[in-house]
Amino acid sequence: MILPLFFIFCLLSSTSQASVVDFCVADYAAPNSPAGYSCKKPAKVTVEDFVFHGLGVAGNTSNIIKAMVTPAFDAQFPGLNGLGISLARLDLNKGGVIPLHTHPGASEALVVIQGGITAGFVSSDNTVFIKTLNKGDTMVFPQGLLHFQINSGGIPALAFVSFSSANPGLQILDFALFKSDFPTQLIALTTFLDVAQVKKLKGVLGGKN
Amino acid sequence: MILPLFFIFCLLSSTSQASVVDFCVADYAAPNSPAGYSCKKPAKVTVEDFVFHGLGVAGNTSNIIKAMVTPAFDAQFPGLNGLGISLARLDLNKGGVIPLHTHPGASEALVVIQGGITAGFVSSDNTVFIKTLNKGDTMVFPQGLLHFQINSGGIPALAFVSFSSANPGLQILDFALFKSDFPTQLIALTTFLDVAQVKKLKGVLGGKN
Amino acid sequence: MILPLFFIFCLLSSTSQASVVDFCVADYAAPNSPAGYSCKKPAKVTVEDFVFHGLGVAGNTSNIIKAMVTPAFDAQFPGLNGLGISLARLDLNKGGVIPLHTHPGASEALVVIQGGITAGFVSSDNTVFIKTLNKGDTMVFPQGLLHFQINSGGIPALAFVSFSSANPGLQILDFALFKSDFPTQLIALTTFLDVAQVKKLKGVLGGKN
Amino acid sequence: MILPLFFIFCLLSSTSQASVVDFCVADYAAPNSPAGYSCKKPAKVTVEDFVFHGLGVAGNTSNIIKAMVTPAFDAQFPGLNGLGISLARLDLNKGGVIPLHTHPGASEALVVIQGGITAGFVSSDNTVFIKTLNKGDTMVFPQGLLHFQINSGGIPALAFVSFSSANPGLQILDFALFKSDFPTQLIALTTFLDVAQVKKLKGVLGGKN
Amino acid sequence: MILPLFFIFCLLSSTSQASVVDFCVADYAAPNSPAGYSCKKPAKVTVEDFVFHGLGVAGNTSNIIKAMVTPAFDAQFPGLNGLGISLARLDLNKGGVIPLHTHPGASEALVVIQGGITAGFVSSDNTVFIKTLNKGDTMVFPQGLLHFQINSGGIPALAFVSFSSANPGLQILDFALFKSDFPTQLIALTTFLDVAQVKKLKGVLGGKN
Amino acid sequence: MILPLFFIFCLLSSTSQASVVDFCVADYAAPNSPAGYSCKKPAKVTVEDFVFHGLGVAGNTSNIIKAMVTPAFDAQFPGLNGLGISLARLDLNKGGVIPLHTHPGASEALVVIQGGITAGFVSSDNTVFIKTLNKGDTMVFPQGLLHFQINSGGIPALAFVSFSSANPGLQILDFALFKSDFPTQLIALTTFLDVAQVKKLKGVLGGKN
Repeated sequence: MILPLFFIFCLLSSTSQASVVDFCVADYAAPNSPAGYSCKKPAKVTVEDFVFHGLGVAGNTSNIIKAMVTPAFDAQFPGLNGLGISLARLDLNKGGVIPLHTHPGASEALVVIQGGITAGFVSSDNTVFIKTLNKGDTMVFPQGLLHFQINSGGIPALAFVSFSSANPGLQILDFALFKSDFPTQLIALTTFLDVAQVKKLKGVLGGKN
Repeated sequence: MILPLFFIFCLLSSTSQASVVDFCVADYAAPNSPAGYSCKKPAKVTVEDFVFHGLGVAGNTSNIIKAMVTPAFDAQFPGLNGLGISLARLDLNKGGVIPLHTHPGASEALVVIQGGITAGFVSSDNTVFIKTLNKGDTMVFPQGLLHFQINSGGIPALAFVSFSSANPGLQILDFALFKSDFPTQLIALTTFLDVAQVKKLKGVLGGKN
Repeated sequence: MILPLFFIFCLLSSTSQASVVDFCVADYAAPNSPAGYSCKKPAKVTVEDFVFHGLGVAGNTSNIIKAMVTPAFDAQFPGLNGLGISLARLDLNKGGVIPLHTHPGASEALVVIQGGITAGFVSSDNTVFIKTLNKGDTMVFPQGLLHFQINSGGIPALAFVSFSSANPGLQILDFALFKSDFPTQLIALTTFLDVAQVKKLKGVLGGKN
Repeated sequence: MILPLFFIFCLLSSTSQASVVDFCVADYAAPNSPAGYSCKKPAKVTVEDFVFHGLGVAGNTSNIIKAMVTPAFDAQFPGLNGLGISLARLDLNKGGVIPLHTHPGASEALVVIQGGITAGFVSSDNTVFIKTLNKGDTMVFPQGLLHFQINSGGIPALAFVSFSSANPGLQILDFALFKSDFPTQLIALTTFLDVAQVKKLKGVLGGKN
Repeated sequence: MILPLFFIFCLLSSTSQASVVDFCVADYAAPNSPAGYSCKKPAKVTVEDFVFHGLGVAGNTSNIIKAMVTPAFDAQFPGLNGLGISLARLDLNKGGVIPLHTHPGASEALVVIQGGITAGFVSSDNTVFIKTLNKGDTMVFPQGLLHFQINSGGIPALAFVSFSSANPGLQILDFALFKSDFPTQLIALTTFLDVAQVKKLKGVLGGKN
Repeated sequence: MILPLFFIFCLLSSTSQASVVDFCVADYAAPNSPAGYSCKKPAKVTVEDFVFHGLGVAGNTSNIIKAMVTPAFDAQFPGLNGLGISLARLDLNKGGVIPLHTHPGASEALVVIQGGITAGFVSSDNTVFIKTLNKGDTMVFPQGLLHFQINSGGIPALAFVSFSSANPGLQILDFALFKSDFPTQLIALTTFLDVAQVKKLKGVLGGKN
C-alpha cells in the first residue's frame, strides 16, 4: 500500500498550499495593508491564535462613564485578521453609559447577557431608533451611524457585541471633540456649541487648544 | 427664522434620500438578490426591525444531539439584511453536541456565556485546531471549514456566535449525508464509509435511498 | 456577405445580453436592494441617464450655515447606481460652514474650485488633521470619520466632492442631535452636554423632546 | 423516537431558510440589480439550473473572423448568478481570430483543449505580453485589459475560458468602433485613424454614420 | 516633433505607475495578506508569469481514489494572484472518484473534456443535486457546499474546473476526518460514526489518535 | 480625578489600535498587495499625506493631443491608498482630445469646470452614448468601457474626474496599439486595420515592430 499512500500524499501536498488562505493569522511584525495585517507563516500558527481570553474579564468601570469597552479586534485577536468579523465586551455599571460613538468600518450586533440596556442610533435622515433591551435581546446598529448604550436596569449590565469587520474602528464623539487637540474655536464653529460648553468638557476630558 | 429654517430643510431633504442606504430592512414579500432581500420602504421601518427577541429563549435540547442552534440570520432578523453580520444562540445540555458542520458563506466567532465548551475546526491541510473554552472565552472559525462544539463542562452550556455575513448558511455534515436523499451507494463511494454504516445512520436521521 | 454577417450578428447577439451588467441605471419604481436600485431595462436607457445637470447650479446659501450641499448620489443620478461612485457640490458663502458630519458608507475626496477652504477630520485615536486648501488643492477624508469644511478665504468658495460609493449617506452631527426627536435627557447623558445647551440648539434647529 | 426526530426537524427547519443564500438561481422575469438577477424561489430550483449544455456544441466559425465565442454567463446559465464565475467556449478554425477585446468586469483564464493558440494582452503601461499556447496550457488575462487569441496551429483550435464574474461583459474593439453608430469623424478624432480606414471597416462590419 | 513626443511621454509616464494595479504577480518571498501575495516588481514581470503549463500533464491516478486533482491556484500560478480566479485539472481513471469535499473560499465551475462524470452537491437544506455530465457539459457548485465527482463513463475522464477566487482552498472530507490527528472519540461524537468505522478509515488513510 | 482619567485613557488606548485601519497611508518603500500599498506607521502620518497639490497646476497641453491627464491615484497621492477613490485633472486646449481609453479597474465621474466638452462611451452591445457637456455638467462612464473626451467649446476646457478605485488604471487605445512593441502584423490581424495605417500611426507615436 506504499504506492497508493504516496500518491495520496501527492494529492494532499499538491493542494495543501491552498490552506494558506483558509486564514491569515496576523503577524504584527510585518507590514499591514488595506486588507489587514500580513499573515503569520502557517507552520507557526497554533490554536491559541484563534482563541481570545480577554473578553472573560470584566472591564474596570471605575471611570467617569461607569462603563468600559474591551475590544477583540484584529489588533488584539490575531486569528480573526482578514475574516471580516470582530468582537467586544461592554460592561456598564449602574448608571453606566457608552457615549455616542460610531464604528467607521462596520455594522454592529449587540446581545444583552445581563441586566437591562437602553440603546439607540440615529439614521442619515435624523430618525432616532431607541429601544430598551432585556437579557437575551439583540439589536443591530448599521455601519457608521451614531449610537449609544446606557444601563437602564437596576444592576450592572453586560453585553457582547460583534462587528462586520476585523477592525471596525471606534470614534467616540466626546473624545473626538473634547479629548483631542481640535481647536475650541473650530469646534464651536462646526458644531454651534457655545465656547464655554466646549471649554468645560475639554477641562473634564483633557482636550487641548 | 422662517427663511433659514426653510433652507435648512432644503439641505436636509436634499440629502435625506441618502438615508435609504444606511440600512436595507428585509422586505420578505419582494424578490431577493445575491446581495440579500429587497429593502422595506424607509417610512415603514420601525425600531422593532432592528431588535430580535428570539435569542433570549433557551433552545429546546430534548433531541438526539442534546443541543439546539437558534439562528438570527437575515431570514429571521430583517434589520441585519445587507449589513454583513448575523447571530445565533447555541444551547448545549449536558452531553450536548453541535455536530461537525460548515458555514459556506461566513466566518464565525463564538463567545461562551455559561459552562464549558470544547470546540475545534479542521483546515484545508488537515490540521486540527481544538480548544476547551471556559466562560468568557472566544474562538474564531474561519469561513467554510468543518467545525464542532461539544459541552465539556458538568452543566448546560450557552454560547452566542456571530457571523461575517447576514446569511452564513449552515451545512450539518450528518444531515447532508444521512438526513437527505443522497443515495447510499454514492455516499459510500464518495466517503469510503461502509454501506452498513450509512444505512444505520440514515435509519436514525431519516434519510432516504 | 449575407452569411458571414449573419454569423457575426450571432456572435454579437450571443454576448450582447452580457452588456446588461456594464451598468445598472436605477429604476426608482422597482425594489432596491443592499446593492442599490433595480436596473432599468437596457432598451429604455438613454445618454441622459448618465448625465446630471444639478451640480451646475449654485446652491442657495441664504441659510444659517451660509452653505449648501447639493448631492448627486444614486437617489438623484440614476446612471451611477451600482458603479461605486457619486458626487456632490459644496457652496460656501463668506463665513460658510459645512458642520461636522460623517458619510457612513464612503470615503470622500474634495477639490477646491474657487476660494479658500479649511477642512479637517478626526481619526479613531482622536488625532485631528486640519489643512487650509487653495484653488486646485485636493483632500481626502477616510470613510466614516467626522469632518468639516469652512470658508477660510475672503470670497465665496466652491468645491466638488466625490465618494467611494453610489450612496455614501450623510449624517450631520447637529441635525442628528438637535434637529431630531432625540430626547434631550438622553442627549445630555450620552454626550455630557449641558441640558441648557441641548435645549438652546434644539430651539434653533427645530428638534423635539 | 418521535419526539427527538421532531426536534431535529426543528433544528433543521429553523435554519433551512439560510439555504436560500447558498445560491441565487436567476429569475429572468424579476428585476435585476447591480449584484445580479433576482433569485428563483428555492422550491422551483432543479439540478438543471446548475447544468449548462451549450458549451458542448462547436460554435459556427463560418464567419469573417473564422471564430466564435459561445458564452455561459449569468444571462445564459441561471445557476451561476451571483456566484462570481462564468465560462465561455472559444472555437477558432484555421486562420481564426478572436479580435482585440476587453471584459470590463472580470479577469479571464484560458485553457487550450485542442490545437495551438497565440494569445496576448497589453497592460496600462503599454507593455505587450504575447505567448503561443499548446494543448493544456493556461493563460490569464487581467481584468479590463485589451487581449486577443488567434489560431496559430495547423488545425482548428478549441479553448474554454472562465471569468471572475458571473457577467464579465465583452467589448470587441472593432465592433465598438465599426459595427456601431459611432460617428466616423469622432472615431477619427479620438483614434487618429484615417477617415478612409474607418469608412472601409464600417463597410465591412455594418457600422453607421 | 521632439517637443510633442516629449509631452506625450509625460502623459504616458505620469500614468504608467497605474499599471502596477493592472495585475499583482505573486512574489512568494514577500509577506502575503488576506488579499493575497505581495506583488512582484512590474519590471521583473514576464509573460511566463501569466502562463501555466502544469495543467497539460495528466495527473497520476495510480492511487486509492483512481483520481488526481492538479491545482493552478495562486500558490502555483503567480500571475493570477489577486485576480479572483483560479483553475484545476481533474483526472478520473475508470472507477475514479473525487471524494466529497468543499472549497471554503470559492464557487466552482466544471467543464467535461473527455468521458462521462456524475457530479453532485448538497445544499444547506440537505437537498441533493446530482447530474451525469457528458463531454462539453458544464456544472456549477456554489461556494462552500459539499460536492463530489465520479467517473461514470467507460473510459478515463478529464475535466477542467475554475474557481471564483485565486485560492479557493480544498477540504476533502475523508482527509479532514481520517488523514488528520482528529481524535477518534471526537470524530465519533461529532459525526455519530461508529468508532470501528473511524478506526478502519484512519488505518487506510493514515490518520492518528 | 486622576483615577477616572486614567481609566478613560485605558478605554481610549484599548481601542486606539483600531484607528490603524481608519486609513492606510501608502508606504511606497514596503511591498504592495492586490489591496494596495502597505500602510505607513500611524505615528508617521501627517495631514500632508491626505492633501495633494498637483491638481492645482494646469497640465501642459503642448503635445499632439493638445490635452493632458494629471492623475492623483494611489501611486501619486498616498492618503487615498485603500480608500476606493482617486482623482485626475483633464486639461483640453482648443481642439484638445483625450483619445479613446479605458480604466480597467474603475468607473469614472467627470465634472466640467470650464469650457465645453463632448464626451462619450460605448457599451458591450456597441451602443454609443455621446453628450456635449457644459460648465457644471456631470457625466459617468461605467467601468472598463471605451470612452473619450474632446474640447467642443471655443475656449480651453478643464474638468476633474474621480474614480471608484484608488488605482483605476488607464489604457489609452492608441498607445496600447501604436506606442508599444505590439507587432504590426498581429495588430492588423486582430483589428482588421490596414498594415499601412498601423505603420503610419506607429511612426507618429513611436511604436516598434
